[in-house]
Amino acid sequence: MIIIGEKINTSRKAIRPAVESKDAAAIQDIAKRQVEAGAHYIDVNCGTFPFREPELLEWLVNTVQEAVSQPLCIDSPNPEALEAALKANKNGKPLINSITAEKQRYEEIVPLVKEYKAKVLALCMSDAGMPETSAERLQVAEQLMADLERDGVAPENVFFDPLIKPISVDGEYGFQALETIAGIAAWNKGVHITCGLSNISFGLPHRALLNRTFLVMAMERGLDSALIDPLDREIIKSIKTAEVLLNRDAYGMEYLKASRAGLLD
Amino acid sequence: MIIIGEKINTSRKAIRPAVESKDAAAIQDIAKRQVEAGAHYIDVNCGTFPFREPELLEWLVNTVQEAVSQPLCIDSPNPEALEAALKANKNGKPLINSITAEKQRYEEIVPLVKEYKAKVLALCMSDAGMPETSAERLQVAEQLMADLERDGVAPENVFFDPLIKPISVDGEYGFQALETIAGIAAWNKGVHITCGLSNISFGLPHRALLNRTFLVMAMERGLDSALIDPLDREIIKSIKTAEVLLNRDAYGMEYLKASRAGLLD
Repeated sequence: MIIIGEKINTSRKAIRPAVESKDAAAIQDIAKRQVEAGAHYIDVNCGTFPFREPELLEWLVNTVQEAVSQPLCIDSPNPEALEAALKANKNGKPLINSITAEKQRYEEIVPLVKEYKAKVLALCMSDAGMPETSAERLQVAEQLMADLERDGVAPENVFFDPLIKPISVDGEYGFQALETIAGIAAWNKGVHITCGLSNISFGLPHRALLNRTFLVMAMERGLDSALIDPLDREIIKSIKTAEVLLNRDAYGMEYLKASRAGLLD
Repeated sequence: MIIIGEKINTSRKAIRPAVESKDAAAIQDIAKRQVEAGAHYIDVNCGTFPFREPELLEWLVNTVQEAVSQPLCIDSPNPEALEAALKANKNGKPLINSITAEKQRYEEIVPLVKEYKAKVLALCMSDAGMPETSAERLQVAEQLMADLERDGVAPENVFFDPLIKPISVDGEYGFQALETIAGIAAWNKGVHITCGLSNISFGLPHRALLNRTFLVMAMERGLDSALIDPLDREIIKSIKTAEVLLNRDAYGMEYLKASRAGLLD
C-alpha cells in the first residue's frame, strides 16, 4: 500500500498558521512524523493561499525535503505553482497531484509531468464534469490513460483517483467508486489506484470509522494507494490487516512486525 | 445482515459446564443478551457431547425458546440430534446447520429440511473433501443447489457457507473465500451467503481484528449473513458501517440509530 501522507495542507487548522509564518520546524516535524508512521509520499498543498501558491509551494518543498527523503506529492491545480515546486524538488521522482481529462488542465499539466519525469495523480473527471456512473468514470479514465500513454507517460507512473462522492447524498456512491476501482484494476496495466477517503463519509457521524471501513472494501477491489493521515492509528491498523488478508504481505511479515510493535492493539 | 449468534456452543469454556449441569438460567441469559445485541438466529451446538447430543440439543432448544422468540440455528451433523431438536422447536422456521454435498450427509439431512420446513446452511464440501480452489467450491455449491431445488428446497431457504481456511496456511485462502462468495452472489438466485469467520485468522495474532476486517471484505462481495458473537462490539460496528457503505441501510437509519445509542464509539 502506497501511503500518501495528507497532513501538510493549509486547509488544516494546524498547518495554515505554520505556512503563513513560514515555521519550518513545525512543518518538518509533521513531515517526519508522517514518514515514521509509514508515509511513502508527503503531500504538500497550500491551495488556501491562491495568490501566493507558487512561492509557498516552493517553500513547502524546500522545507520538507530538508527534513525527510521521501518523495513529495505536489498538490495544486495551478501549473505555475507546480512548476516552481518541481524546480525546487530534490527528493526523487515526485507525484504531481493532479491531472484530469479537462482539456485545458491536461494541456497545462502534461508538459510538467514529462519535463520533470514525474508521476501523476489522474482524477476521473472531464470537461463534462464529474461523471455520474462508474461506467462513465471508467470511460473518462480510459481516455485519460490513452492520452497519457500517447504523450509518453507510462501506466506505472499514473495514480488514478476514482473520485469518491458522499453516500449521504446517494447511497449508491460507495458502489460507484468501488466498481470504478475494480474496473481500472481489471485493465491489468500496472497503473496505481488511489483516493482521498473523507468525501465518502461527508454528512454522517463517526467519519473515521466509515473512512477506514470503506478503505478496506476499496483495497479488496484493487486500490493500492491512499491519501490518508498516517498518524491515525486505526486507519493504519485497517491497512496492515487488509494487506495480510489480501495476500499482499508475504508470510504476514509486516503484520507480525506491526503486532510486535503494539501497533495493532 | 442476518446475524447468527454463535455463543451457545459447548466448545466454549463458559457454555460446557452450563449445559452439563443443565443450568437453564445461564443459557437463557446468553440467549437474551445475543438477541438484545442484534442476533436474528440463536445457534445451539453441543457437539462436544457426542453421546448425549440428541438429549442435550433438545434441552438447549427448549431452554432457549423459553427465553427468546428468535428462530434457532440447530447445529449438528447428527441427524438423530437434529430430529430431536426439530421436534422440540417452536420458535418459527429453524435453520439446520448444516448439510453438505457428501452423499450420506445429504441423504440424512434433506428429509429433515423438508419435513420440518426448515432453512438449511449448506457447506461447500463434497465426498471429495474440502475443495482447494474457488472454482471447485463453486462447482460443489452449484451441484448442491441443484440437488436441493430438485428436492423442493427453495433458494431463499439456503444459506451457503464457502468454508474459510486460514491465511496463515496459504495467503490465497482469503481470496478463495471472497471469490466463492462473489460467485454465489452472481447467481442472483436469492440464496443467502454466510460464514463463520474465526478460521481465517487461525495462527495469527489480533484475530478479532482480522476477522472483522475480513467480514467487511466478504460483505462487499455479497455475504449477507454471518455466524458471529454479537456481543463483540467491534464486529457489530464493522457490520453497521459496512451496511451503510454498501447501501443496504436505507438513509443510514440503522447506522444513525447505532450512532445515537453510542454503539459506534
